[in-house]
Amino acid sequence: MERRNFLKKGLLAGAGIAAGIVAGRVPAFGATEVRESKDVKLPLPYVKLDPEEIADRAYSGYFHHECCYGVFGSILDALKEKVGGPYLGIPSLMFWYGGGGIAGWGTVCGTLNGAAAIFNLTCKDFKPMIDVLFEWYEKTPLPDYQPKVCGKVDIPNFPKSVSHSPLCHVSVMRWCKIASVALKKPVLYNSPERSERCARLTASVARKAVELLNAYHFGGFKPTPIKGTQKTKMECFICHEAAMKELS
Amino acid sequence: MERRNFLKKGLLAGAGIAAGIVAGRVPAFGATEVRESKDVKLPLPYVKLDPEEIADRAYSGYFHHECCYGVFGSILDALKEKVGGPYLGIPSLMFWYGGGGIAGWGTVCGTLNGAAAIFNLTCKDFKPMIDVLFEWYEKTPLPDYQPKVCGKVDIPNFPKSVSHSPLCHVSVMRWCKIASVALKKPVLYNSPERSERCARLTASVARKAVELLNAYHFGGFKPTPIKGTQKTKMECFICHEAAMKELS
Repeated sequence: MERRNFLKKGLLAGAGIAAGIVAGRVPAFGATEVRESKDVKLPLPYVKLDPEEIADRAYSGYFHHECCYGVFGSILDALKEKVGGPYLGIPSLMFWYGGGGIAGWGTVCGTLNGAAAIFNLTCKDFKPMIDVLFEWYEKTPLPDYQPKVCGKVDIPNFPKSVSHSPLCHVSVMRWCKIASVALKKPVLYNSPERSERCARLTASVARKAVELLNAYHFGGFKPTPIKGTQKTKMECFICHEAAMKELS
Repeated sequence: MERRNFLKKGLLAGAGIAAGIVAGRVPAFGATEVRESKDVKLPLPYVKLDPEEIADRAYSGYFHHECCYGVFGSILDALKEKVGGPYLGIPSLMFWYGGGGIAGWGTVCGTLNGAAAIFNLTCKDFKPMIDVLFEWYEKTPLPDYQPKVCGKVDIPNFPKSVSHSPLCHVSVMRWCKIASVALKKPVLYNSPERSERCARLTASVARKAVELLNAYHFGGFKPTPIKGTQKTKMECFICHEAAMKELS
């Protein structure tokens, strides 16, 4: 019932968009309804997606427009194909900027930024979804995705690391350190190995995000409470012990 | 000419969206054009906005759906009103998730995440725009916005701080420390003062983002090269001196 009402509103909004472009303004016909539903209402309807298929698309997407696009674009494009409607008005490239922790600044991992945006689009209660994904990302040895056809580098037993943090530069640095030991050579940020790692990580996070979305919408999602300080849900000790002493 | 072509494509895409919802599929009429322009092409057209007006709207927006929405939604909504077309298909609430450094995780400041997304939507070369905004945010005493009507707290000589970082929890912590000294009482994360600070910061960043957008599109934008390490454009010493020793 909720979904039917949504689709009805979406129809009016969609018609309004097209008519608005033609006339250059909100049309007289059905003006009240169009004005009421002028903004695209969230959450958008979600249909079950195949986590493995999305992972493959995300992996490939990374090599086109980086990590954040890889996750956001792969899921959005699948929803454009399977649901259409309101998804068609959202540009697939709008999360390109999130690559490398936002244009290379090394802040939040782009894969998480892209996944969080998809949760915001499709889940009424998106914050517990973000909490579960971020905690999984911090604690899981990643990347855990094996591509069917490799991008640039094919290494048997591809190195995995536990990031302990949702931040790009922390996550990347830990992986480079572990990969350097495993591969017996310095593995730096600008190496093809690091790029391959981030492509596989993009696939890992996209797959996990879809698994969570399927669970949220079709049963089985379990929120996990996050213990954080008052200022952040990240673990302070990972970066700075001194600051923790100051806080306590 | 480029703009005209864009608008023409937007028209077809827009019509496709509405017709697609009605028919549940891409319509036979004009199918080729619709398929070609199925994704909304970036960048979208930009018209000059009033930085002060956007700042006021962003300040108010913060109290509805937090910082990231405050910046993204205030600029998007103004472009929906003044340009319409492709902007109308983008949900204004889609950056709610970025609040508190993404759902309270304290990663990238939500105001920066929202502004970076707008740059991605409207600027072909969005990365230098992000660099200039992030560097300004790191080095400027903020918030520098004075609301016409205050939200929760009206303090004469409202405290300002220099964040030295684009991260939410670092930025907030520095401000709380300085505010505690200035106001001669402990100013904590969960205080109305901190909330008021983030609302004013939302306005400051939205205003700066619009100033940069106006300069980028109508003349006067100057990119500034950022000195960073290979892994991040942030300054490592701000958080961890030990890690820098390890890197060098």
